[in-house]
Amino acid sequence: MQPELKNLCIHTITTKPWAIEESAEYFARAGVGGITVWRQALEGRNITRTGEQLRNHGLSVVSLCRGGFFPSTSLRQRQLNIDDNLLALDEAAALGAPLIVLVCGADPGQSLEVSRDQIKAGIEAVLPRAEELGIKLAIEPLHPMYADTRSAVNTLSQANDMAEAINSPHVGVAVDVYHLWWDPTLKQEIERCGQHGNLFAFHICDWKFPLDDILNDRGLMGEGAIDVPQIRQWVEAAGFSGFNEVEIFSNRYWAMDQHEFLSKIIKAYRENS
Amino acid sequence: MQPELKNLCIHTITTKPWAIEESAEYFARAGVGGITVWRQALEGRNITRTGEQLRNHGLSVVSLCRGGFFPSTSLRQRQLNIDDNLLALDEAAALGAPLIVLVCGADPGQSLEVSRDQIKAGIEAVLPRAEELGIKLAIEPLHPMYADTRSAVNTLSQANDMAEAINSPHVGVAVDVYHLWWDPTLKQEIERCGQHGNLFAFHICDWKFPLDDILNDRGLMGEGAIDVPQIRQWVEAAGFSGFNEVEIFSNRYWAMDQHEFLSKIIKAYRENS
Repeated sequence: MQPELKNLCIHTITTKPWAIEESAEYFARAGVGGITVWRQALEGRNITRTGEQLRNHGLSVVSLCRGGFFPSTSLRQRQLNIDDNLLALDEAAALGAPLIVLVCGADPGQSLEVSRDQIKAGIEAVLPRAEELGIKLAIEPLHPMYADTRSAVNTLSQANDMAEAINSPHVGVAVDVYHLWWDPTLKQEIERCGQHGNLFAFHICDWKFPLDDILNDRGLMGEGAIDVPQIRQWVEAAGFSGFNEVEIFSNRYWAMDQHEFLSKIIKAYRENS
Repeated sequence: MQPELKNLCIHTITTKPWAIEESAEYFARAGVGGITVWRQALEGRNITRTGEQLRNHGLSVVSLCRGGFFPSTSLRQRQLNIDDNLLALDEAAALGAPLIVLVCGADPGQSLEVSRDQIKAGIEAVLPRAEELGIKLAIEPLHPMYADTRSAVNTLSQANDMAEAINSPHVGVAVDVYHLWWDPTLKQEIERCGQHGNLFAFHICDWKFPLDDILNDRGLMGEGAIDVPQIRQWVEAAGFSGFNEVEIFSNRYWAMDQHEFLSKIIKAYRENS
């Protein structure tokens, strides 16, 4: 079934050349239903007012990106990381975002196992404040090519394990097709995630080949190797009815006229998601 | 325990600027025990004679790289791929290489599952000839970032599954730390691989960060995020007593004087493997 435009959410970083006020205006005008806000888009702004502006455009504020980056070989740095996540929670509350996406972090100076233990401890340290504010936290497993410094959680299985171990209605998982499409256990882990009520967010884009840049060469849906409609079907079969969030980092698309890019996003969403 | 120089093997592609005759002479002079030959290094040469030259230097010919690339949406292309693997078997026989490493391939025009079925069928198609020649085939799982076009086998678990399903003493697995270091099931899958007698090869290098190039920015052992000694210990505990093969693709190192690079390889092997 073709996805509906009102279920489309776009991340502010996807149209990075635009200020958040421009993104909000143009997303809303195009009929896009939601916006996920990256923290750097809020710089120098009154966050509460910005949240009101987004809602006044008729946009749902889907999530705040991003918390996480908990691990470090330094105990002091780990405390600073926790403090920054507490700050992100305050920002999400001011903005009116019901969810923070966690890019969990990794420190190559220690094993991935130790980093994962520190991630779990970090989430548990900020969880009381998240519960108090009524804000959910989504563990986002990142592609194994980011296991060096960005995340020690690299499969949906690991993210599910962690969310189930923490066992709070405020802690779940974000499924991003870019990070997970290759995983032979993806379908079963999506089912498992849904069964535990842990499927909090769904991010889409495509995997281009050849990949020109390990960070900033994501493709539009239909442009690469990922069967996005198949994964969306699994996610919906698992009970997910939230937004389809387009999160694209792309030097190529950022260099393009962003109105043209927005049209391409909507076309790709309608035809290849 | 510090690894021994006689157990060190270097791939011809690691010192790509050298012709195979130069690599053989300089590896042997440095006390390196083995050489793995990439097919392009044999171009324009009498393969039987080249094999003799390598052995005359006292080098063990460890393996031929590489076979594989079986999948395609085109039936005709799949037959051509099988023919090329039969040719590789003849080349390995002429060279005196007891093993061919398989980079299995993937076609983004079809699902990874279908590509894996075609890989299995391709291996089974060439297996009678491999058995006849007494040459083993090692399925090498590749990092998930290569799932688009290079390999639909992206974890050791999948490679073990496939080797066990084919169930021939001539089909096993190559463990490369670069592809597998991030995998939370790595230790148990190495044990499993050893228990089934399927651990045919062990490749080492390191994962640099940030990664400048998705293909050609591998690091020397100790330079990146991988705990090579830990993985070597797992491999040896699983019963592996073969060569530690240094396989580094690196624009940076290829630009360096190769004698200096060879010294660095040996130092990194002694100190960080």
